[in-house]
Amino acid sequence: MGLTDLIAGGMDSIDATALLINVMWTMLGAILVYFMQAGFAMCEAGFTRAKNTGNILMKNMMDFVLGSIFFFIFGFALMHGTDWNGIVGIKGFFDPTSLADADGMINGLPAGVFIIFHTVFCATAATIVSGSMAERTKFAAYLAYSAAISIFIYPITGHWIWGGGWLSELGFHDFAGSTAVHMVGGICALVGAKILGPRIGKYDKEGKARAIPGHNLAIAALGVFILWFCWFGFNCGSTTAATTNLGDIAMTTNLAAAAATLMALIVTWVRYGKPDVSMTFNGSLAGLVAITAGCDAVSNWSAIIIGAIAGVLVVFSVEFFDKVAKIDDPVGAISVHGVCGATGTILTGVFSPDYTFGTQLLGVAATAAYVFVLAIIIFTIIDKTIGLRVSKEEEIDGLDVHEHGCSAYADFNFRI
Amino acid sequence: MGLTDLIAGGMDSIDATALLINVMWTMLGAILVYFMQAGFAMCEAGFTRAKNTGNILMKNMMDFVLGSIFFFIFGFALMHGTDWNGIVGIKGFFDPTSLADADGMINGLPAGVFIIFHTVFCATAATIVSGSMAERTKFAAYLAYSAAISIFIYPITGHWIWGGGWLSELGFHDFAGSTAVHMVGGICALVGAKILGPRIGKYDKEGKARAIPGHNLAIAALGVFILWFCWFGFNCGSTTAATTNLGDIAMTTNLAAAAATLMALIVTWVRYGKPDVSMTFNGSLAGLVAITAGCDAVSNWSAIIIGAIAGVLVVFSVEFFDKVAKIDDPVGAISVHGVCGATGTILTGVFSPDYTFGTQLLGVAATAAYVFVLAIIIFTIIDKTIGLRVSKEEEIDGLDVHEHGCSAYADFNFRI
Amino acid sequence: MGLTDLIAGGMDSIDATALLINVMWTMLGAILVYFMQAGFAMCEAGFTRAKNTGNILMKNMMDFVLGSIFFFIFGFALMHGTDWNGIVGIKGFFDPTSLADADGMINGLPAGVFIIFHTVFCATAATIVSGSMAERTKFAAYLAYSAAISIFIYPITGHWIWGGGWLSELGFHDFAGSTAVHMVGGICALVGAKILGPRIGKYDKEGKARAIPGHNLAIAALGVFILWFCWFGFNCGSTTAATTNLGDIAMTTNLAAAAATLMALIVTWVRYGKPDVSMTFNGSLAGLVAITAGCDAVSNWSAIIIGAIAGVLVVFSVEFFDKVAKIDDPVGAISVHGVCGATGTILTGVFSPDYTFGTQLLGVAATAAYVFVLAIIIFTIIDKTIGLRVSKEEEIDGLDVHEHGCSAYADFNFRI
Repeated sequence: MGLTDLIAGGMDSIDATALLINVMWTMLGAILVYFMQAGFAMCEAGFTRAKNTGNILMKNMMDFVLGSIFFFIFGFALMHGTDWNGIVGIKGFFDPTSLADADGMINGLPAGVFIIFHTVFCATAATIVSGSMAERTKFAAYLAYSAAISIFIYPITGHWIWGGGWLSELGFHDFAGSTAVHMVGGICALVGAKILGPRIGKYDKEGKARAIPGHNLAIAALGVFILWFCWFGFNCGSTTAATTNLGDIAMTTNLAAAAATLMALIVTWVRYGKPDVSMTFNGSLAGLVAITAGCDAVSNWSAIIIGAIAGVLVVFSVEFFDKVAKIDDPVGAISVHGVCGATGTILTGVFSPDYTFGTQLLGVAATAAYVFVLAIIIFTIIDKTIGLRVSKEEEIDGLDVHEHGCSAYADFNFRI
Repeated sequence: MGLTDLIAGGMDSIDATALLINVMWTMLGAILVYFMQAGFAMCEAGFTRAKNTGNILMKNMMDFVLGSIFFFIFGFALMHGTDWNGIVGIKGFFDPTSLADADGMINGLPAGVFIIFHTVFCATAATIVSGSMAERTKFAAYLAYSAAISIFIYPITGHWIWGGGWLSELGFHDFAGSTAVHMVGGICALVGAKILGPRIGKYDKEGKARAIPGHNLAIAALGVFILWFCWFGFNCGSTTAATTNLGDIAMTTNLAAAAATLMALIVTWVRYGKPDVSMTFNGSLAGLVAITAGCDAVSNWSAIIIGAIAGVLVVFSVEFFDKVAKIDDPVGAISVHGVCGATGTILTGVFSPDYTFGTQLLGVAATAAYVFVLAIIIFTIIDKTIGLRVSKEEEIDGLDVHEHGCSAYADFNFRI
Repeated sequence: MGLTDLIAGGMDSIDATALLINVMWTMLGAILVYFMQAGFAMCEAGFTRAKNTGNILMKNMMDFVLGSIFFFIFGFALMHGTDWNGIVGIKGFFDPTSLADADGMINGLPAGVFIIFHTVFCATAATIVSGSMAERTKFAAYLAYSAAISIFIYPITGHWIWGGGWLSELGFHDFAGSTAVHMVGGICALVGAKILGPRIGKYDKEGKARAIPGHNLAIAALGVFILWFCWFGFNCGSTTAATTNLGDIAMTTNLAAAAATLMALIVTWVRYGKPDVSMTFNGSLAGLVAITAGCDAVSNWSAIIIGAIAGVLVVFSVEFFDKVAKIDDPVGAISVHGVCGATGTILTGVFSPDYTFGTQLLGVAATAAYVFVLAIIIFTIIDKTIGLRVSKEEEIDGLDVHEHGCSAYADFNFRI
């Protein structure tokens, strides 16, 4: 129904106008967040090797596909269904629209609008993991993981934070999902990469890390530009309403990302002697992830500081996981999404007068703990049943030829 | 004029508000549908060979360019001009804005908004064909086709379905264009590919089909992600109004696409032993095409079923045209747009209580018949005059070097 | 605050509705204009050589990053701060939000909305230059330039044209920035390329120009499609309001671009014997740039003529700079943005009854003169201090390996 229909049906004209402009804004947000899938796919493909490109593209597509389906069937009900003790939703399985009130609304929006918006957020969390597990994960195992995160992990902590659960009751603030989306994805990425073990050739006999460069920086950079673009939908769209502060949110988002990019550039320039391309682009993502929790609540200058911290942190974090923890994360997903997601959420308690450091830390810790445990259980089960990792031969030849019988660049010769 | 100007000019405040929010939503739809051009260009380039990349990019650009110009001059008038016996519009040539009423409106929207929206839809139909005719069509011939579809084909059946013509009078329902856009493009694709004949090397001496793999799955996948993204504009934008059901349309669109992708994955896995990358991504498009007719009229679960059917169908349809009909369609456009467009339109009559199987079938059949005949006439005339197909030498060396004097990848060596 | 909050706070319901729909439209515009960065990055990367891809991507990223930061700190105040004699703004440094009125508004929009919108426009001007200076500019020098244009150049002429300065007082019309954004960028591109000198190998011993083809037409074309897509945000968004003429603006924008593309195709076909891919895609951009000044003020047919002129002009202009002036502009940025930006602005005075040729010419000339002088000063200072150009060895081996220690295509062999 359009505006005149709603009013003809007895709705107050201001309420009807508010409803429809909120619908439009939320829809724009949802559409942009969907397009993050393209950004992740290009980033992850570009930052890994040509022999695995078809496979990583498929994983990025399929985590969205399975996420969409399983979030519809199970996840939405667990996240936004009738609350049970602040822990989990327990109604709305198989048909989330059944949760709508008599006017067809959920949380003040038409059911379909609210559901599609949360569907694309869930799929964003799911897709983060494909990067850290790239180039060595069995395709079938990855499909199982995609279904599992969309049912057992994301919706539960999502319920705590955004579904009326205990963390939202406590005053924990994660506006657009530094924790609910990114840290959740980042911790799954950490557990998955750890259980998988490093790619063949990543560490030499002395255990020294070797760089395995990505095969296509052009599409990787395109991926980052797409993600930055879509992040305006992610953060500004998370008002789920047309409001006067949309520009403020865009400003903090943009300044944090810019500051993070600049700091990553500077830190790599100082440490490595040259400004590093991959790390600078990862710096952009680090800043975007970090500001997401507090983009509506901090000043422009605070956003610059939060971004700058993320931009420095991501470089050292990537080094730490690479060289010290020896967890092979081909695209830096653990650092970008996990570490910067947690940091940004906690910093919201530092830079915003409306939220407290303690509650923010608690929310991060509780979410991390749950996701950590569940991810270990899920990846272990998958490992023991389907098996997580491809064979040595498949890994060396590339996943494209063995898993999909194709080459992503059939007309070109490339190094295996 | 903005809201306060409209009201100062005497317009009712609710009508003025409705008008402007409808304008905004329709504009967003139009902008997203424009961007489908990028999606088709990347898909078609990626799924074909490196030696023809510059050419296919040019064709994708030029069908939009010629579509925009000729639809403005002739097409819009034929489609939305004053109706003549339900068959064709007969006013508004050379200046479609002359069709506007005293308030500057066409069909309840400001003329410019309505015209740009329909322009990008027309260009979508036009661009579908470049895929099936890829790698062997003369560039000048393709330009002639592009003008012809934008004048003689798309606007006529478009008038029947959306311009107040006889099919819309009968109650035929094609919400966003499974038939009006996709099947029309798909049938032109079929006729063009059939008249052209297969690429050199496509069939061996025994007539057995050989796979000719695309040269860049990364940009092909990007194309599919872009198309899925833009499809939210295509389907949700087709309300041409801010309405409460935008989310419902996005949900059916998304679920159908997800189900189709999953089914194409499963079917190829079972049939070929491995989940096929190209076919899975084509599955996404198949689902999107199929749900387009009924995205506003079917339930979420019906959308899943429609998508699943399209996902299975597209695999067998591609096999049929490839192996049985021996029509060489490099990107699967006939199956994706033609077969799934028709199927989705007909299934709307099955899954929606508001529409009937018979009327849906009639609309599909009538549209298909008209397009089939016109496409045969047009392609035959082009073939007999300009000539449709490049020389054998040009085809073997690649269209880029002969038609455009370039290489799309000048710094790289690639297989011819 | 959303609609009901605004009204509860005492705002008139029509004013509040107008405000929020204007916010939404302006935000959509800003988000799309941001995404132009991806378009420029892909275009410039694709039209240059593989050995410099990482570098050009970094430059495209960093001019946006530095533009965002320095426009926030200095540029916005100079452009939109309290006016001083029509020449420059002098308030709002370090915190542009301090320029907001008691209701938090600047120029009728919430401060944040207005600031983010102008931030992305500034960054567009900045990013144009990386193309003309590609493949030979020192990275550190480019960073210095990026900061300088965002402080000393763009905001000053921007103030004259859009910030209430003397040109806007005179009735100069540059709706969305043919001059304020594109010509400004184009003149900086000209000065930069001239001071830098041509790439090694661009001219042979007799001074004859040699073509240096781009390495990836697929991403270059993608860049053009992205830019065209975003231009709807650039031009239609420049209303900064939801208005009834958004479709008219989209129509003139689209038709001009289409006509320019077609003319560039025809001219190259006639002159070179083959329709040129790079030039045709540059023709699209030429048309978009040219229509930007008058997209709100000219008829559809005038837009076609303006576009057609730009499409012809860009071919001859590129030839002129390449062969006669011997200024090496790898992507044609001087012609596309500088020449067509100026031409389109002046033609607005020809084709629109509301503006005069004389004033349009004066505005172009004054802006060009200021930018020319400042650009010479800035590039000369950078050249004498940091040094503008890389060493001969670095240029030959490629900027990626020397400036960033990477290869953009690590798995592929490509020509140096």
